[in-house]
Parts: sequence; structure tokens; C-alpha cells
Amino acid sequence: MAAGFSGGQVLTGLRLATMAAPGTGTIPDGVIAIRDGHIAFAGPAEELPREMARWPGRDYGGRLATPALIDCHTHLVFGGHRAREFALRLEGASYEEIARAGGGIRSTVTATRSASDGELLAGALTRLDAMIAEGVATVEIKSGYGLDLETELRMLRVARALGQARQVRVVTTCLAAHALPEEYTGRSDAYIDLVCDRILPAAAAEGLADAVDGFCEGIAFSPEQMARVFAAARALGLPVKLHAEQLSNLGGAALAARHGALSADHLEYLDAAGVQAMAAAGTVAVLLPGAFYTLRETQAPPVALLREAGVPIAVATDANPGSSPMTSLILALNMACTLLRLTPDEALGGATREAARALGLGAETGTIEAGKAADIAIWNIETPEELAYRIGDNPLHQRLTGGRA
Amino acid sequence: MAAGFSGGQVLTGLRLATMAAPGTGTIPDGVIAIRDGHIAFAGPAEELPREMARWPGRDYGGRLATPALIDCHTHLVFGGHRAREFALRLEGASYEEIARAGGGIRSTVTATRSASDGELLAGALTRLDAMIAEGVATVEIKSGYGLDLETELRMLRVARALGQARQVRVVTTCLAAHALPEEYTGRSDAYIDLVCDRILPAAAAEGLADAVDGFCEGIAFSPEQMARVFAAARALGLPVKLHAEQLSNLGGAALAARHGALSADHLEYLDAAGVQAMAAAGTVAVLLPGAFYTLRETQAPPVALLREAGVPIAVATDANPGSSPMTSLILALNMACTLLRLTPDEALGGATREAARALGLGAETGTIEAGKAADIAIWNIETPEELAYRIGDNPLHQRLTGGRA
Ligand SMILES: [Zn+2]
Ligand SMILES: [Zn+2]
Repeated sequence: MAAGFSGGQVLTGLRLATMAAPGTGTIPDGVIAIRDGHIAFAGPAEELPREMARWPGRDYGGRLATPALIDCHTHLVFGGHRAREFALRLEGASYEEIARAGGGIRSTVTATRSASDGELLAGALTRLDAMIAEGVATVEIKSGYGLDLETELRMLRVARALGQARQVRVVTTCLAAHALPEEYTGRSDAYIDLVCDRILPAAAAEGLADAVDGFCEGIAFSPEQMARVFAAARALGLPVKLHAEQLSNLGGAALAARHGALSADHLEYLDAAGVQAMAAAGTVAVLLPGAFYTLRETQAPPVALLREAGVPIAVATDANPGSSPMTSLILALNMACTLLRLTPDEALGGATREAARALGLGAETGTIEAGKAADIAIWNIETPEELAYRIGDNPLHQRLTGGRA
Repeated sequence: MAAGFSGGQVLTGLRLATMAAPGTGTIPDGVIAIRDGHIAFAGPAEELPREMARWPGRDYGGRLATPALIDCHTHLVFGGHRAREFALRLEGASYEEIARAGGGIRSTVTATRSASDGELLAGALTRLDAMIAEGVATVEIKSGYGLDLETELRMLRVARALGQARQVRVVTTCLAAHALPEEYTGRSDAYIDLVCDRILPAAAAEGLADAVDGFCEGIAFSPEQMARVFAAARALGLPVKLHAEQLSNLGGAALAARHGALSADHLEYLDAAGVQAMAAAGTVAVLLPGAFYTLRETQAPPVALLREAGVPIAVATDANPGSSPMTSLILALNMACTLLRLTPDEALGGATREAARALGLGAETGTIEAGKAADIAIWNIETPEELAYRIGDNPLHQRLTGGRA
């Protein structure tokens, strides 16, 4: 920009879906004024403040603008992949045979531990680039395939490095309480000790974790164990969230809500009491249709109850090598509608406004409103519902983060 | 290429999945020699004939090569879209309300009839380009949203024009017997007269149709009406295929088989007798998981019966604005595995070898074998099963059609 120029820029000729609130619809002749990486004005062209009308403009020819997308639940960093296991299952192999062939989450833990930082970074970059190409500007990335002090910290460092390598906002989550590592078989409380006494404090000391997560399930950790993890997080000043009620109802969402969790995620088996607890705490329900689809789950999360209770609903990819090898958040919008019966407006709100809230970033991004970061996606479509309607399509025209293309 | 050069080229450093037969696996250090747009040799590097070893080479660094993909069932040409209808359904609108809002296939017929050739071409090009970007080199395109003489022919001309506009093999199908147009309400036999006596002969006379298709279903046309369409096609020397057993079992697949159909498509409600008839006739079963997914169908096609009977199984997108607004054939592979329980090898074979057979092109394309067209996809992955395993991912490195990138 020319020296001495003190203004900003104006994007014109936009259909504007600000997503500022549910059901806001679109502004047909919209403009967005941007200064210092933030939105100075967004609204109808005729309401653009006079001083901004002098800023240099760029016309978008009637394209649709929405908030840039936010993927608020991913496991982007991991070693290896599980395509062989995927094939074996479909070829009729038993669970025993798959376990013998090294399948399941433990195969990913082994591959992640043995991968170099460079390998972890390169693998995750491919996946992150696919997300960026679909208009994602903010992505949450969890650890949880290290399950030891060194590898959990390495995963979080790689997640931070991803945020340096690309023009994207990375939010990290320490998910050391994801699964019981093989070397702790039969000693799950001792592993929770390790998480609480060593891994979380080390991650916090190095500034590597923006939040703490766990997996509360029969095959993972009990509510009592998760309560210990949450207490340790609180002592470190870190917000919490939880993989809850994915395969059964252990009351994990209510537990998370009692600990003031940002979000409870999955929620297929959530009951009315859990919904009420989440509503009371303002905990976001993060729905993960990619895992629902991959696992051929038949019980959908209680969307009607969540709506009635006013629980904010977010949608994310759950990108991971096992239960959701999916990097397309746009496809997750379609699945959220087709499989979980969200409306297109709810789905897109769930990958923008509510996803920001699930990350504690509701004041900074997720809607197109004055004062927020200029994180904007511009699409070659006319209406926001087209995003969720098409399957396996990417109509992105341009992504702006902090006003930069 | 330099004047006087009479040889071809060799692609080296490939993991080669020729897909020549089910379960062929991969050749780790493979090469493909190409001359005059066709494959001169494909196999292990050490078996490359000596004269071809002198041809100029290009190394692919260990990337995976498969046959270029073939989408053997699409409705790529249409006017408008149905995102509003998609949203209305999810917002709880009744079928009546949607019909009043102009929903359903009739809305696409109205939009297609009123669209100019240029508009139809532009819309379809966007979708075709998405397919090409995923390694598709051959695509079947049906008419069926005109339902009058003029618009059916216009759709087929646009389909032919798509094959000129892009480096892709387009196979056209006249699907005038897709639905009953509104102006023929209560007079379906009269519409079948129009199809048999005017539309098919006109399409044949202009060389616009490579095959003839119909929709045999309670909401469309009866087996008796389809038999008339098939007889008309035979009189014109055109092969036939059929949308059969999608919503109920009317014996459409057996009818198609009796008429020597290339394929019967959808097949959720196919019974054992239909399977046997298809096996006897060599009719390909084209599975369309995108429609299965979108309609939230719970009855899957009888894959085990098809396998046992040796019926060839193909997989396609069914790309259309209503029941499968999907342009990703790679995603269809994942859905074929996840939802319909094909193996990854069957799914990829279904979008290459068997898709070619479903189009009557089995001798020309669909596998990497000497003598076939050099239609090849090269991927940034190591094993073919990774293609079906990932969801919403496109690992294409390069697509060759007739040897040309
Ligand atoms: Zn997760
Ligand atoms: Zn169809």
C-alpha cells in the first residue's frame, strides 16, 4: 500500500451472509470495509460510511461472502494412515485379524511416535492445505496420538508450527487423555496421573495448549478420571472440552458442563439431562458427522432437544485417520444436514459463528461484523444454502484472513 | 515432439495399479510406455521392451498410477439448482409446500427448458471441470430434463459440446423416458409415443445418442412402457440401459437384461431373479451411492448376491440436482465402501474397468493394458485403497487422456 495511506480497503459487489445470528439471511448489495486486518463496516452498500467510500475498492461481481470457515475439532497431526485397516474391514477381516495386522488407534500411536517432526508436519500440511483451499481460516488441532510426554508435546509443537507455515489461525488442544497407551494396560489411573502431573503442566509451561480435551467412554476414560483431568486443567488456567456420549451415555457432557467446558463433542447418546446441563453452562455442542457417517452410527445426536434448549451447535470434520479420514469441512456441512438434519443455515452457522464460540474466539472471528477479524470466504455461488446442498464440491473463489488474500 | 521422432514416451517410477482384473494389486516399480495415444507397454520396469527403453522418459517418483476414472452415470447438463428445496425440506416444509415452491424434478425441467444452450454449457462445464480435476477422463451424460423434442436434443448437443470444450471422452445417453412432463399428465402412453416415434429417432438421426435409458419406477414409467422404449432403441441400433429397482422392485433389471442392456443402475430393491438375469446377460450393475446417501435409503443393493453371481459392479456419481448433487467420483468410491460395503478394490474397479464395460468401452479404456487408450491418473498416494479410504480428499497429481496431460 502506498506510503502515507492511512485508510483501508472496501470489498464491493457482494451478497453478504454475515452469519451474525441464526437466520440473518443475505444482504444483496453488500460491502465490507477492512482496516488493519479487521472489519470496519459490513452491510448494504448505501450505508457505507462516507470516509470509507474513499478507500480503494475491489468488486466481486455479486459473489457470496460468508465468514471464513472454522474447523473447531480436528486431529490433523498424526503419523501414517489406516487405509489398509479400512480395506481389511471391508474384505471381511475380523477385529482380531485387524488387531493382529496392527490396526486401530494404537497403530496411529505407533506411527506418530516413530515419525519425525518433519514427517508429522509434512503430513499435516497436506491436510491443512486441503482445508485452506476450502476457505478455512481457523483450525483447532488436538494432540492425542502420542500418549507419552515427549510425543504429546511434539504433536502440539507441530500444530503451532502449522500456524506459522500457513496463513491460518491454529488453536491447540492437549488431548493426552485420548486413549490408554499400551504400556499402561491395566493401569489407567496411573496414566491419568501422568497426564495431570506431567503432560498438562509441561504443555502449559511451554504455552503449547490453548485447551484440554479428553475422551470419556467405556473404551477410554471414566467420568471420574476426566474430572481429574479437568481439575488439573483448571489449576493451569486452561479451558476444557470433551469427547462425550459418542458411543454410550456416561454423563460426560454434563460433567464437562459442570466444569464450564467450551464444548462437548460427538453427543450421539446425549440425554435430556445432558442437554440441560450444557444449556445452563453455555457449552457448545460440536457435531461431527464424518465420524457418524464412517462408523455407520444410526443414533443421531438429539438435535431437536439441543435446539429447544438453546444450546449452540457447531459442526466440524473430526479429521483423523480412523473414524473420520475427512478434511472437507464443506462436506461436513452437507453431512450435518443430510445425516443429522441440521438446516443449511444451522450447518454454516455451526462452521463459523458457533465454531468460533466453541474455541472461545466468539469475539474475534466467526461472523462478518465490525470489529472482528477480516476472516472472509468469497464463493462462486449465490446463496449460503448452496454450500451445504452440494456434495464434494468446492466453490471457493477467495479466502481472506485478517483482510489478506 | 521433435520432427522425425517416431517413438513414444515412457512414464517411469510408478506404482502401477493396472486394474486389469479384480485383486490384481500393484506393481511396485512400474512403467507405462505410450505411443500414438495408446499404451504400448505397462508392467515392471525390468520387462520394458528394449526399443521402448530408448523413448524419452518422465519419472514420477514412486507415485501411484491407476486407469483414469470413468463416471458412467451422470446427469451433468441441467438448468438451475435445487438448494432452496434442500433447505426447505430440512426446515420442515411439507411435500405440498415444496411442490408449491416449485420443487422436485419439474423445477429442473422448467429451468432446463428456459436455459439457453450457453447457460446449460456453462453450468455443466463447472461440474465437468470438478470431475476432470479428480482424474476423470470419460464421462457419460444423460438428457432427461427436457422431456420435449427440442430440449432433449439441446441437452444432448450440449453434452457433445462438452466433449469438444474439454479433453474428455463424453458418452451421451438419451433419457427422454426419465419422468412424465407436466403437459402429459394422465397420458403417459402418449408421452412414450413421443419418445419412441419422435425423440429417439431424431436423436439417432443427428448422431446425438450413444445409448438409450429410462426410469422404470412407480413414479415414472412401467416395465411395459420401458419395453416399448427399448424396442424403439433396438430399431435404431442403439444400446440400452435402465434406472431400475431404485425405490421398489418392478423387475426392471431383468427387463433390461432381456433387452441385452449395457447396465442396470441403482438396484437397491433388486431381487435374486434380477441378479440372475443380469448375470446371464452380462449386464453391469451400476451402483450410485450418492443417491443412496442423499435419499437416506436404508436398503442397500444386494452386493453379496451380485458378487456371487459374477455380475460386474460399477460405481458412479449420478450427478444430478436433486437426489445426488455430487460431482466427486472419488467421494462416490468412499460411499460405495462405507455405505454399500464394496471393498476398495471393487470400488476403484467399479470406476475404471467396470465403468468402461458399462459404457461399452471395455476394449478401449478402463484398465492400464497394452492396446488401450493411455487414459491414466497419477496420484500423490501409495496404494489404491487410499483413494476410497479418505473422505472429501483429492490426491490427483496428473491426469493423462490419450497420453496427453
Ligand atoms: Zn475427535
Ligand atoms: Zn440417474
